[in-house]
Amino acid sequence: LNYSIAAKERGTITMHPITSTLRLIGIAFGLLASAGPAFAADLESWSEGPTRQAILDYVKKVTDSNDPAFIQKEARVAVFDNDGTLWSEKPLPAQLQFTIDRVHQLASQHPEWSKQQPFKAVLKGDQRYLSQITEQDALKLLSATHTGMTQAEFQKIIEDWFRQAKDSRTGRLYTHRTYQPMTELLSYLQSKGFKTYVVTGGGREFVRGFSQRAYGIPPEQIIGSSVRMKYKEREGKPTLIREAKIAPPINLNEGKPLNIEHEIGRIPVIAVGNSDVDLQMLEYSASNLQSSLKLLISHDDAVREVAYTEGTEKVLAEAKKQHWTIASMKNDFKTIYGTD
Amino acid sequence: LNYSIAAKERGTITMHPITSTLRLIGIAFGLLASAGPAFAADLESWSEGPTRQAILDYVKKVTDSNDPAFIQKEARVAVFDNDGTLWSEKPLPAQLQFTIDRVHQLASQHPEWSKQQPFKAVLKGDQRYLSQITEQDALKLLSATHTGMTQAEFQKIIEDWFRQAKDSRTGRLYTHRTYQPMTELLSYLQSKGFKTYVVTGGGREFVRGFSQRAYGIPPEQIIGSSVRMKYKEREGKPTLIREAKIAPPINLNEGKPLNIEHEIGRIPVIAVGNSDVDLQMLEYSASNLQSSLKLLISHDDAVREVAYTEGTEKVLAEAKKQHWTIASMKNDFKTIYGTD
Repeated sequence: LNYSIAAKERGTITMHPITSTLRLIGIAFGLLASAGPAFAADLESWSEGPTRQAILDYVKKVTDSNDPAFIQKEARVAVFDNDGTLWSEKPLPAQLQFTIDRVHQLASQHPEWSKQQPFKAVLKGDQRYLSQITEQDALKLLSATHTGMTQAEFQKIIEDWFRQAKDSRTGRLYTHRTYQPMTELLSYLQSKGFKTYVVTGGGREFVRGFSQRAYGIPPEQIIGSSVRMKYKEREGKPTLIREAKIAPPINLNEGKPLNIEHEIGRIPVIAVGNSDVDLQMLEYSASNLQSSLKLLISHDDAVREVAYTEGTEKVLAEAKKQHWTIASMKNDFKTIYGTD
Repeated sequence: LNYSIAAKERGTITMHPITSTLRLIGIAFGLLASAGPAFAADLESWSEGPTRQAILDYVKKVTDSNDPAFIQKEARVAVFDNDGTLWSEKPLPAQLQFTIDRVHQLASQHPEWSKQQPFKAVLKGDQRYLSQITEQDALKLLSATHTGMTQAEFQKIIEDWFRQAKDSRTGRLYTHRTYQPMTELLSYLQSKGFKTYVVTGGGREFVRGFSQRAYGIPPEQIIGSSVRMKYKEREGKPTLIREAKIAPPINLNEGKPLNIEHEIGRIPVIAVGNSDVDLQMLEYSASNLQSSLKLLISHDDAVREVAYTEGTEKVLAEAKKQHWTIASMKNDFKTIYGTD
């Protein structure tokens, strides 16, 4: 019985005949659906081996009230990076593709952009310029594409984009190229009483646009980077206007533990990441006095995904030194997206 | 059977004999305890009348899946101001008393304070100076008493303070002068699937220091004002150092809806406040397309609490104009703290 949030998201629910029959009886299916993860074999897309076993062993001990490592339910906080941890970040992080698409979409209202950097580079696909983009130019792109509208208008723009935007490498909708082993890990932890959070360098509204469907994670459990907003009455109605200013701290590196403490007020017991910007979040979780699990996703599968270590050197070295758990996508993931 | 979070907090659990017997059977009591609020009559400390009825009617319709006003469980977000809404703010807000106590406690390490404002005024109890305190001087007090230490050290300071600090008017421990009708309202809403948040102008760490015990609200559901923190490795361990800078926006007025959107990402359906700094939070909740409940606590009980309207004029006028629900402490609260 292959029934998980990931499968639901992909619209490829494969049901055992008995479930199909039960579906006819509305309420029975309702009960089955809400109990979803409990029916799936735990972490079935993970290969048997030390990584899967380390996760299962950790969860077993901290949820067993007779074990000295037992952790009360309310303290079971698990934080996950997003790009490269829960879904692919190559060839481009989804939000960068969204930014490029927005520039193309808005270009007709801005004829001056054809001669103005960084817009010119985006419109011409000048990779060389973009790969060396300055912070100031990046902020110009962000301002032009992510700000100036109300929060509600921006949410609608994101929703519309996710409905049709496809990743150029896989040809799949962005929301359909989450890692199946990771969405299974999320469901599994949720079923064991963990409160799962996404702690992303990306924008929080962007990730909130699909996190409930794809990860079973509600908006209030998304911590990300963001811009400042301004409260304004508009025709007697309060609206929040997105301004062209980053709200500090950016949710990368030290920003991750700082925002976790600010918003959650607890040190996580599980932290999962894949790159150097996740290092402080992993170290912060390791400082928990309770038993903690630090999991690093290693992009070593050149055939089914993309193999790269750039930007992950420091965290990989620290993971090895501290004996954190490392998941090899090549060896530990039976499938990447659920169809291979 | 008088069993609620408020009663637990006060350490005055009065149990029906059958419950006492069940307590001997550990697990059975465990079951009873976790189902606590369901055994208490709903809002029993609220007088019969239009206010109590408005709350019950609202909750009934939005939790009834056959009602057109039905609200899905995940969207049932209820936000509560703290000072003057969930507990007394007169004669002094608890955190101001905490600040004064800290100045006295630290004075021996700062002999210069006896000659330096604003410390001199605090040490001498100079109410006139303090009532006209400048923003700059207030920040000096905040810095000296709330910053410079690690977040963990500050949490310990708060915990120690709450263990012994008493409100001068009632002589009660601060954590024992929460409003019983309001803690009942919190329990009631929680039992109906609402996610309850405190959205306070006070410091988030300060309120997190007692919110689980007093309100049944975990740290991740406390939104408050705060200072910036710095991430620093100390003897190889990551620590968060509290800095002498306010993290914008301060959680008052427009700051409340801004922080709600930033951290929760949903517009609340219930908002409860008592003063002008809650006005925008109430208006923001009123802008929800779903049916919403705006509740204003009116301090009109000179006998059992303190009667005052200063600082509440604007919100009171708006509440009357928009027909929001107004709870009179004098008429709608059968008891204030649970013992009168």
